[in-house]
Amino acid sequence: MQIPHPYLLFLGDAPDQLAAKTAQGIAQWRPDWCLGQLRLPGAKADLGLPELEVARAAAEGARTLIVGVANRGGVIDESWLPVLLEALDRGLDLASGLHRKLADVPALAERARARGRQLFDVRHPTRDFAVGTGAKRSGKRLLAVGTDCSIGKMYTTLALEKEMRARGMKADFRATGQTGIFIAGAGVSIDAVVADFISGAVEWLAPANDPDHWDLVEGQGSLFHPSYAGVSLGLLHGAQPDLLVMCHEPGRPHMRGLPHYRLPDLEECIEANLRAARLTNPEVRLLGFALNTSGLDAEAAGRALRDVESRFGLPAVDPLRTGVARLVDAIG
Amino acid sequence: MQIPHPYLLFLGDAPDQLAAKTAQGIAQWRPDWCLGQLRLPGAKADLGLPELEVARAAAEGARTLIVGVANRGGVIDESWLPVLLEALDRGLDLASGLHRKLADVPALAERARARGRQLFDVRHPTRDFAVGTGAKRSGKRLLAVGTDCSIGKMYTTLALEKEMRARGMKADFRATGQTGIFIAGAGVSIDAVVADFISGAVEWLAPANDPDHWDLVEGQGSLFHPSYAGVSLGLLHGAQPDLLVMCHEPGRPHMRGLPHYRLPDLEECIEANLRAARLTNPEVRLLGFALNTSGLDAEAAGRALRDVESRFGLPAVDPLRTGVARLVDAIG
Repeated sequence: MQIPHPYLLFLGDAPDQLAAKTAQGIAQWRPDWCLGQLRLPGAKADLGLPELEVARAAAEGARTLIVGVANRGGVIDESWLPVLLEALDRGLDLASGLHRKLADVPALAERARARGRQLFDVRHPTRDFAVGTGAKRSGKRLLAVGTDCSIGKMYTTLALEKEMRARGMKADFRATGQTGIFIAGAGVSIDAVVADFISGAVEWLAPANDPDHWDLVEGQGSLFHPSYAGVSLGLLHGAQPDLLVMCHEPGRPHMRGLPHYRLPDLEECIEANLRAARLTNPEVRLLGFALNTSGLDAEAAGRALRDVESRFGLPAVDPLRTGVARLVDAIG
Repeated sequence: MQIPHPYLLFLGDAPDQLAAKTAQGIAQWRPDWCLGQLRLPGAKADLGLPELEVARAAAEGARTLIVGVANRGGVIDESWLPVLLEALDRGLDLASGLHRKLADVPALAERARARGRQLFDVRHPTRDFAVGTGAKRSGKRLLAVGTDCSIGKMYTTLALEKEMRARGMKADFRATGQTGIFIAGAGVSIDAVVADFISGAVEWLAPANDPDHWDLVEGQGSLFHPSYAGVSLGLLHGAQPDLLVMCHEPGRPHMRGLPHYRLPDLEECIEANLRAARLTNPEVRLLGFALNTSGLDAEAAGRALRDVESRFGLPAVDPLRTGVARLVDAIG
C-alpha cells in the first residue's frame, strides 16, 4: 500500500480545528504533498492552504483526496458523498482513517470500481501478517515510547526524521497510526491488527535495511496504560529498537481517559521499557527525552527540561520549542 | 455464545493422537458432555469413547458436533463435508477452532441456514469488545502465567477449577483459547481479538461477580515470548488477577518455536508478571507454581518441585503428577 500524492485535504464541515487534527498533521509534515483544502459550508477548521474544488485539484494533479476530519462515531457523513463521488469521477483515489470504512459505503465502493480508483481505509489492515520471530535484523531502529497516549510520540518521530534527513542521514519514519500513515503514505494501523500479529506486523513495517539506515518507528500507547499496554509491548518487541526516546508531559494529572490511573514515574517507565526492549535487542539504550511542555510557560518549560536532563544525564528536548537537534547529536 | 452440549467429537482422519489434541482435552475435562467419537476410515487417533455415527449421536441427544482435529493450514477438509452436512441435517450445531471458518464454506453456510443451525468458529471473535478501562471489579480472579507458550496453563487452570468446585468453592474457568472454549462452552479466543481490545475483551470475559467467586482465567503466551508478549500483557491487565500461578517446564531448552531465545529465569519472569499485574491490581501476589515435569522421571520431578518450593517458599505442584490441592490450600 502506498497512497499516491499530492493530496487534496477534505475537512468536511469540521466544527472546530481539533476535528481537523489529522489534516493539520499532514499539512504540517508534508506541505509539498498538500495542494489545498476543501471545506463544506459551515466548516470552522482552516489549515491556511489554498481552497480547491475537486475539479481544480484534479487539474493541478491531485492524486488522492484525504478525509482529514474526524467526527463522533467515525462515520462517513452523508453530506460528504457528493464531494467524494466527484473525486472518484475525476480520477482521484480516496483515503480515510475513520472507523467506518469507505469500502463499506456501497455508493463509494461501486463508483470506485467503475472508475478503477482505490479506497484506502488506513485504520483497517488490508493484508495478513506473519507471527513475529524476534530474529535480529540489519539496520538501526529508534522507537518513541511514552508515559501515556497522545503525548507527542508521532510528532517527535517526525521531527527526528526531518532533522536526520537534513543532516544527510538515512532515516525513514514508520507509521503505526492513521495520521502517521497519511504522512508517510504507508504504514500499519497497529492497534487494528489481530493481537497475535502485533510484533510480526512491526517486523514487516521496519524490515532489514542498510547498516547505517534508521527506521524511526512511531510508538503507540504506553506500557502503563491499562487499555493499550499490550499493543505497546508488541510494538516494542517487533521494533527491536536500538534507541528509545521517552515522551512525557510534565504535570499531566492522570492517564488519558482514565482519571483513576496516575502517570507512572519517569524512572519506572524508563526501566520497564528498557527491560522489555532487551528481550529482542539486548543493546537497546535510552537516547533522551521529548517533553510536551505545551501546558507550561517558557520559564517553567526550561526548568522542566533542565530538571530531567540533570536527573538522568541525557538530553531532553521539547520538539516544538527547542527542536530535536540535541537528540540527534546524541545518536553519535 | 454458548455452545450447546452434549458433544459428538469428530476426529476426521487424524493421522496421529496429537492431531486430535483438542478433542482429547474436551474428553478429559468434560467427560459428561462427550457422547462419543466419530472417526473416518484411516484415523489413527482414539479417545476411548464410544464410536457413534451421526444418526446415533443425534438419537442419543448430541447437540453439537465438535471438529476436534487439527491439520496443516487449519482448513475444513473436503472429505469431512458429508459428515458435517449430515450433522446439520440431523439437528446438530457445528463448532470448530480451525483457522478457516465453517461459515466460509458455502455448502455448510447454506445448509446451516436452511436447517436453522449454528456454526461456531471459536477462533474468530463474533462480537465487538470495548476498550479496557482497568476499573476495579468485584469478585476474585486467578490467572495462569508462564515462562513460555504451551507449558500447561490451560491444564493447570482446569485442574484448579475441578479442585475448587470439589471443595464447594465458587469457581469458573474462563477460556481464552480454542480448546478451552470447547471445554467451557464459551470464551474468547484472545489472540484473535483486534489488538486495541485485548484487555477489554478479558474484562468482558471475567466480569464483576460475587465477592467470594473465583474466575480462573486461562493464560496465553508469555511476557518473554517475542511473538506473543503483547497478548500476554493485555490479558494480564484485563484479568486484574488477585493471584498468579507461574507455569514452567524445567529443562525446556528454548522458547517454543524460537531456538534463538532462551527461557527466562523464574525470578525474572515472576517479577515481570507481578510488576505488570500491579498496574490493574496492586494487591496481586504469586500463589505458587505449576511445573510441567513430563520430561522427567519421578525422582527428578520430585527434586524439581522441592527445589522451586525451597527457592521461593511457595507451593509447587505438577497438576498431572501431584494434583493442585496444595495450591488451593494456599488460597486461604
